[in-house]
Amino acid sequence: MITIGIVGGTGYTGVELLRLLAAHPHAEVRAITSRKDAGTRVAQMFPSLRGHYDLAFCDPKDARLADCNVVFFATPHGVAMSQARELVPAGVRIIDLAADFRLADPATFERWYKMPHACPELLEEAVYGIPEINRDAVRGARIVANPGCYPTSVQLGFLPLLEAGLVDTRYLIADCKSGVSGAGRKAELSLTFAEASDNFAAYGVAGHRHLPEIVQGLNRASREPVRLTFTPHLTPIIRGILATLYAPLRDPDTDLQAVYERRYSGEAFVDVMPPGSLPDTRGVRASNVLRIAVHRPPDSDLALVIAVLDNLVKGAAGQAIQNMNLMFGLPETTGLAAPPVMP
Amino acid sequence: MITIGIVGGTGYTGVELLRLLAAHPHAEVRAITSRKDAGTRVAQMFPSLRGHYDLAFCDPKDARLADCNVVFFATPHGVAMSQARELVPAGVRIIDLAADFRLADPATFERWYKMPHACPELLEEAVYGIPEINRDAVRGARIVANPGCYPTSVQLGFLPLLEAGLVDTRYLIADCKSGVSGAGRKAELSLTFAEASDNFAAYGVAGHRHLPEIVQGLNRASREPVRLTFTPHLTPIIRGILATLYAPLRDPDTDLQAVYERRYSGEAFVDVMPPGSLPDTRGVRASNVLRIAVHRPPDSDLALVIAVLDNLVKGAAGQAIQNMNLMFGLPETTGLAAPPVMP
Amino acid sequence: MITIGIVGGTGYTGVELLRLLAAHPHAEVRAITSRKDAGTRVAQMFPSLRGHYDLAFCDPKDARLADCNVVFFATPHGVAMSQARELVPAGVRIIDLAADFRLADPATFERWYKMPHACPELLEEAVYGIPEINRDAVRGARIVANPGCYPTSVQLGFLPLLEAGLVDTRYLIADCKSGVSGAGRKAELSLTFAEASDNFAAYGVAGHRHLPEIVQGLNRASREPVRLTFTPHLTPIIRGILATLYAPLRDPDTDLQAVYERRYSGEAFVDVMPPGSLPDTRGVRASNVLRIAVHRPPDSDLALVIAVLDNLVKGAAGQAIQNMNLMFGLPETTGLAAPPVMP
Amino acid sequence: MITIGIVGGTGYTGVELLRLLAAHPHAEVRAITSRKDAGTRVAQMFPSLRGHYDLAFCDPKDARLADCNVVFFATPHGVAMSQARELVPAGVRIIDLAADFRLADPATFERWYKMPHACPELLEEAVYGIPEINRDAVRGARIVANPGCYPTSVQLGFLPLLEAGLVDTRYLIADCKSGVSGAGRKAELSLTFAEASDNFAAYGVAGHRHLPEIVQGLNRASREPVRLTFTPHLTPIIRGILATLYAPLRDPDTDLQAVYERRYSGEAFVDVMPPGSLPDTRGVRASNVLRIAVHRPPDSDLALVIAVLDNLVKGAAGQAIQNMNLMFGLPETTGLAAPPVMP
Repeated sequence: MITIGIVGGTGYTGVELLRLLAAHPHAEVRAITSRKDAGTRVAQMFPSLRGHYDLAFCDPKDARLADCNVVFFATPHGVAMSQARELVPAGVRIIDLAADFRLADPATFERWYKMPHACPELLEEAVYGIPEINRDAVRGARIVANPGCYPTSVQLGFLPLLEAGLVDTRYLIADCKSGVSGAGRKAELSLTFAEASDNFAAYGVAGHRHLPEIVQGLNRASREPVRLTFTPHLTPIIRGILATLYAPLRDPDTDLQAVYERRYSGEAFVDVMPPGSLPDTRGVRASNVLRIAVHRPPDSDLALVIAVLDNLVKGAAGQAIQNMNLMFGLPETTGLAAPPVMP
Repeated sequence: MITIGIVGGTGYTGVELLRLLAAHPHAEVRAITSRKDAGTRVAQMFPSLRGHYDLAFCDPKDARLADCNVVFFATPHGVAMSQARELVPAGVRIIDLAADFRLADPATFERWYKMPHACPELLEEAVYGIPEINRDAVRGARIVANPGCYPTSVQLGFLPLLEAGLVDTRYLIADCKSGVSGAGRKAELSLTFAEASDNFAAYGVAGHRHLPEIVQGLNRASREPVRLTFTPHLTPIIRGILATLYAPLRDPDTDLQAVYERRYSGEAFVDVMPPGSLPDTRGVRASNVLRIAVHRPPDSDLALVIAVLDNLVKGAAGQAIQNMNLMFGLPETTGLAAPPVMP
Repeated sequence: MITIGIVGGTGYTGVELLRLLAAHPHAEVRAITSRKDAGTRVAQMFPSLRGHYDLAFCDPKDARLADCNVVFFATPHGVAMSQARELVPAGVRIIDLAADFRLADPATFERWYKMPHACPELLEEAVYGIPEINRDAVRGARIVANPGCYPTSVQLGFLPLLEAGLVDTRYLIADCKSGVSGAGRKAELSLTFAEASDNFAAYGVAGHRHLPEIVQGLNRASREPVRLTFTPHLTPIIRGILATLYAPLRDPDTDLQAVYERRYSGEAFVDVMPPGSLPDTRGVRASNVLRIAVHRPPDSDLALVIAVLDNLVKGAAGQAIQNMNLMFGLPETTGLAAPPVMP
Repeated sequence: MITIGIVGGTGYTGVELLRLLAAHPHAEVRAITSRKDAGTRVAQMFPSLRGHYDLAFCDPKDARLADCNVVFFATPHGVAMSQARELVPAGVRIIDLAADFRLADPATFERWYKMPHACPELLEEAVYGIPEINRDAVRGARIVANPGCYPTSVQLGFLPLLEAGLVDTRYLIADCKSGVSGAGRKAELSLTFAEASDNFAAYGVAGHRHLPEIVQGLNRASREPVRLTFTPHLTPIIRGILATLYAPLRDPDTDLQAVYERRYSGEAFVDVMPPGSLPDTRGVRASNVLRIAVHRPPDSDLALVIAVLDNLVKGAAGQAIQNMNLMFGLPETTGLAAPPVMP
């Protein structure tokens, strides 16, 4: 049994960790913290978990996290890095679902998150947790930076093109559409049903925090520096991201389908669909699969890639468990094999 | 391994059976039929199942259903009864998710479904498959009539009141609200997004086919004959039924909470919530749980019961698998333990 | 031109007043107040109004409301009664869209709204503004209490039965379903898209503030005292209320259709639909019409009435303008004639 | 009074024409045809129109369209061109909301619509009806080809850039998102609520019929030939299109805001929003306004334009009435001035 602590369990990534871990045969959640809701039973706040957890939220100071094998941080930015210096030396492995360890450069972190980095020396050893890119490093990592939802879809979507040097990296476009749970479990007027439903809009056009994370990842894969235009949109669905990616091809005759199938051959959680496919978000709902289709639009020299994932699973809690499985020597798919929920 | 055939697998109950059985450790789907889509791979029609099934739909005549341990009928009404006479003597057990074996009286069946019953002698032995009512009979059944989605919620909601003789059975009201998947997977104008979303309406007020099925079940539980007003409504959600039930109490001082907790004590799939609870449909989404809360509205002598379930799971495919587990001596919860998907 | 002030214009009833008044040929909005957003242009907060209003929100103290012919209060409860004593003697007529003047008995008001009434002497003269009940009184009123959204639907739905003494008034049930805008324009977790969409639940079962208002209205219409069970539900639509009403008939042979048609004959905004109709909320979306259908469910002695309205129009701003039209001698339909928006 | 005939009034563009014309002071709908529903009253099929129309659908042969001043074709492709030869010489002006007269080249029409053009000589004189491009020609036209919903948003969005020669026309991208009503009022499985809600997907990537129409329009505005990648997506909203447009700037220092404001200065139905704005679809819901915002994404040389419209109004019926107003010498905004419905 892997003993688990969850810091900040009252948001959507926290409750999704609980949902998925309830079905994981080798995981035991020992503690889940919430300063505000200490004492409340998990199943009282989330009736969907009635019968699955007896646990109550506890105050961070009572959580005895140092006794856990792994601690997930499902917190706002800034919390994980403030506790890492204590937990890591105690032998606890950390998977941070926030941004504290995602940006390798502390200055970039500070610019986008408006706070200095609390432990640059640990940042250095942290591993960016997309197993399909970084599998071996994840296995041995003490700290895993679990990627953002947009970054997972955009990086895995562009990756085969960049690694193979097939596109003009100066003109990449990621036109992304996210469901509302991507904004987190919070009371905000613009997220209410009366405001967000039957409505569609872009946001963050002037600069979204996932932009530097994506560009960092694309640059690692690309021989040439990448310029990316990233346009996030809010679509009235609960879960799901669909990324429509555009890149100018150097050679219009490349067999893109083969490139993608080769790159992701053997990957349990990346599904390259047959030519002509149009993946939809519900086709991955509640599952850890990312599906990709690659197209050549008529009368153009662009590659058009469509990538879909569930922002709370492959875009957050599911990928975190996938990373945990790797870190503890389990088959990568353990606890993550249930098919998507459709309709 | 229980070997399984599914007749009519292209509707929502069919694909939900596939989703749930993919996670069932002792089930193996051997054949799935569809006259219209014979030859199409299951995972092509339902991309959510990619990686879970290699199976293709086959023509009924090629399905070798007689070699299966159990056959699920996820078909329109009339199909199961036309094949039962062949399968049952061959030792195949049948679970019909349509209405063929639900109404004990062939004349009532004929009146509501506009067709004569094809095998009244088998109808006689068929067991109505709500395990919380009929567990022992289900265990030994050769034919299980899997109940409708509304009937499951309304019967389990009213049951404790009727069994204990606590209410005036002449004035029962079931004001029910169903998600759109309850209407099945079919192209109908009134079910399109542009017609059904941002909209709310009643339907079937003049008489819905689930009415006689519910009344039959309530009469079995009640000492006195039942008169029920059943008003179904369509609400713009995908999955879920919420039944608001009203019944005049004989004795306003009855401790209803205790009655319900006692009745469903030990039931894995019926969750009597704490006093004052207001169950919501997403709290059971994609799971086999039915949650109930019982209230006493202010200044009235009514019992007010709220019951929620996922119409495709406890209201159809999940309950069917629960019945299968019983019929084959497995723990009732096998393959059905995953928590609801929330949000 | 009727000169108009709006106090508290940043909520849904406020912006709906603005939308409707923009199309009203004899109305001129002179001032709209918001303490918090003073200085912000209306069209900046509500881009849908770009090109229709140059006005900015102003601080209440700068609003010169005493110069207006009529002031609408689209505020939380408690504001209108605190300003009425100043405005009414100045000759300003008041239409309060909150609850300050709805409950005739100050003690009842205090019990449900947890504040003493600020001007009981004005409460006494206030007119409850459902024109179909109170038309003449509205014409001469200095203060109109604009009814709540649920109360409008339930009262107009039950009215013909009660006025004619056709039902047993001890067993009335109003099972109501409301869209999310009914909760107001506010940041609340339970109202967010991720929480409220693809979900259905009851709320306020233990006692909702609209209950005493409804009962007061029903008692005025009925010869015998009324006992009502009122169950509000939240349904994932933006606008709209559907009320399903149940009442035991004294004489099952009454021609209910005729009763309803007679009662509402000549009413521009109450549409008694043909027998067998099932009104839907979108059929009244964005319009001031309330549609009613009356049914006799099979095998029961109940009258079943379905009433639908747009909670922001006939349930709030539209009815307020209908009242204003009466108060200023205009045809009742002025500015309110546009058909519903469908789909 | 302009006397009006509508051919094919049972679809969404037909009922939207009826909704808008009900509020038009100089329009009188004399006939509305439907072969299938002849005899049915308009208000029976569309209860939202109860009280607004006494008219019944009539068979085309009984419609006496030749007596009307103008006939709208709200039909599938192919109908308008089959009747134009009779109506036009009779002095009836035609506004076709389908594609029959949109593509100037009959061969292109035939390639995309799989039918020969029935009256190429009338095609030649037909005017493409975007008033903001073609106002004078519309005034005198006998036949107006009312543009598609996507084409209106994409053309008006790109227009200022192309007319001024500011972008590299070889790399235009239109990533478009449409509500479900854009697919028409039809029973199709993929459009049902259970399939289309809580879901997001692209479609028509391999080639959509609006592509040649858009390219034709962009080429007319551009000095250099245009290559466009057009990716339509289906988003779970009822009404609305949001087009996100990308074009590489020749000179990154151009003041795009000024270019757009100048181009659309004085236009009643094109609203260039302030810098930094993010228009949403509900901000134009049920109205004839198209709103545009122009952005410069960080670290890129692209112009990013966002255009939103209501596909049934500015994208169909509203623009048709705007064209009618021009053709009959009325102020362009007649009957189209109501603000959007929000929320």
